[in-house]
Amino acid sequence: MAHEYRYRRRVEFSETDMAGIVHFSNYFRYMEGAEVAFFRSLGLSIHNQRDGRVIGWPRVAAECTYRWPLRFEDEFEIHLVVRKKTSRTLTYDFRFYDAQGRQIATGSIKTACVDFDPATEKMQSMPIPESVSEKIEEAPKGDL
Amino acid sequence: MAHEYRYRRRVEFSETDMAGIVHFSNYFRYMEGAEVAFFRSLGLSIHNQRDGRVIGWPRVAAECTYRWPLRFEDEFEIHLVVRKKTSRTLTYDFRFYDAQGRQIATGSIKTACVDFDPATEKMQSMPIPESVSEKIEEAPKGDL
Amino acid sequence: MAHEYRYRRRVEFSETDMAGIVHFSNYFRYMEGAEVAFFRSLGLSIHNQRDGRVIGWPRVAAECTYRWPLRFEDEFEIHLVVRKKTSRTLTYDFRFYDAQGRQIATGSIKTACVDFDPATEKMQSMPIPESVSEKIEEAPKGDL
Amino acid sequence: MAHEYRYRRRVEFSETDMAGIVHFSNYFRYMEGAEVAFFRSLGLSIHNQRDGRVIGWPRVAAECTYRWPLRFEDEFEIHLVVRKKTSRTLTYDFRFYDAQGRQIATGSIKTACVDFDPATEKMQSMPIPESVSEKIEEAPKGDL
Repeated sequence: MAHEYRYRRRVEFSETDMAGIVHFSNYFRYMEGAEVAFFRSLGLSIHNQRDGRVIGWPRVAAECTYRWPLRFEDEFEIHLVVRKKTSRTLTYDFRFYDAQGRQIATGSIKTACVDFDPATEKMQSMPIPESVSEKIEEAPKGDL
Repeated sequence: MAHEYRYRRRVEFSETDMAGIVHFSNYFRYMEGAEVAFFRSLGLSIHNQRDGRVIGWPRVAAECTYRWPLRFEDEFEIHLVVRKKTSRTLTYDFRFYDAQGRQIATGSIKTACVDFDPATEKMQSMPIPESVSEKIEEAPKGDL
Repeated sequence: MAHEYRYRRRVEFSETDMAGIVHFSNYFRYMEGAEVAFFRSLGLSIHNQRDGRVIGWPRVAAECTYRWPLRFEDEFEIHLVVRKKTSRTLTYDFRFYDAQGRQIATGSIKTACVDFDPATEKMQSMPIPESVSEKIEEAPKGDL
Repeated sequence: MAHEYRYRRRVEFSETDMAGIVHFSNYFRYMEGAEVAFFRSLGLSIHNQRDGRVIGWPRVAAECTYRWPLRFEDEFEIHLVVRKKTSRTLTYDFRFYDAQGRQIATGSIKTACVDFDPATEKMQSMPIPESVSEKIEEAPKGDL
């Protein structure tokens, strides 16, 4: 059972904007990158095609607080923690650290498990499958 | 003095993801689009170059709650409301409506006025210039 | 039968990069925007869901030549011309003009009609459906 | 003197579109990623701030030909080759390979060295600085 993950990456040129810093919307892509890598580290995927249906994880809510900017070629680390797990949702907290270990941003994403029919494009909330549920747990309170 | 703005647009193909819906990070670009159009409607810009310096508006915090998905070619409207104005920051609330008038998402962005020196890439908090401050006001409480 | 289209838009903040200009990859999104609007002007869509299958237009080739940069809030126009139409492909030429009418970039996209099964994710080349073919024609040679 | 580079990465969720494949514009971001990593492997950067001025590499032309699609979580490799070097420009060829070694796309980017004054936002063509020129060479003809 896992409840945290550390994810490293480097700022790409196309992620900057004319203010010379990473565009604030890209922090949400970075958080998703950490989530995907967390799932992959457990042998899972956030987008699972099976028998003509898809199990996916659309977002219910997302937020980010920005303290220090990220710039082109900066390396940074995201520390993902599973803050809450219900029968149908997962909520992650994310802390961003720069190469000096300074906390530069924090964020969270709440996501819900859905069954998705690509043919009709209908999404329906569903319980988290056991294959996922048995591998992911809430972090102990002290970690948050 | 203005405290709200209505902004319409249509979902582009490149804004969708493999789940067939708009990627959640793009809602933050849409909110910024509404903010930029609000400024422009007042003869202002969120990125102002003057005498080799830039007055910009980096983000302090941003959040979004998603109720119904947006899909390719959907038209939608964003209703921006100025929720809070301090001497150095502006906080906007955004409500997203689909073509049927259904509220599909809500969000907010808190942004701080900075003086930015492109030569050194240093940003420094500054009071909102009067040219901006005289045109933007907090919405009356009932509007929120 | 249509063989050209004019599409206007304005540069968004998130489309710029730290060099202060529109990131070169976004010109391809702009060209696609022109293509989508061209299709829509004919009552068509470049992504058509029907009976659990999708008719789509993946790209075979794309190119762009950049003469003058686009900057934040610049208005520009794209002139789309249908350069070539075969039984299974369409090739568009695009010319970008700034607000002063100066040609700032040119590009082209070659795209192929495919039948796409969302359940299996398989794509297969198919003849352009008559509903599309009857509305789009090659431009006369003099227009190119 | 270097004239080639191999760059690996994995497709991110936000890089896909509703057709279930990587959006074609992202191939240009991938090529730029390879270019940036090539420069970094030589101790260089494609965006160099010095004495209040920037040396940058805006694009003159870019093109891509697509053979097989990339999907979410696919690993792929880009093989960058320096096809042409003049006193003021570099032209790269890129070949994309999937995890099975199959060539799935090819592309090229021509880029020009400029001196960029952030204060005035003016760009001016300049000779490639010796610090760059002494490290990058054209590939032998057989490699292309």
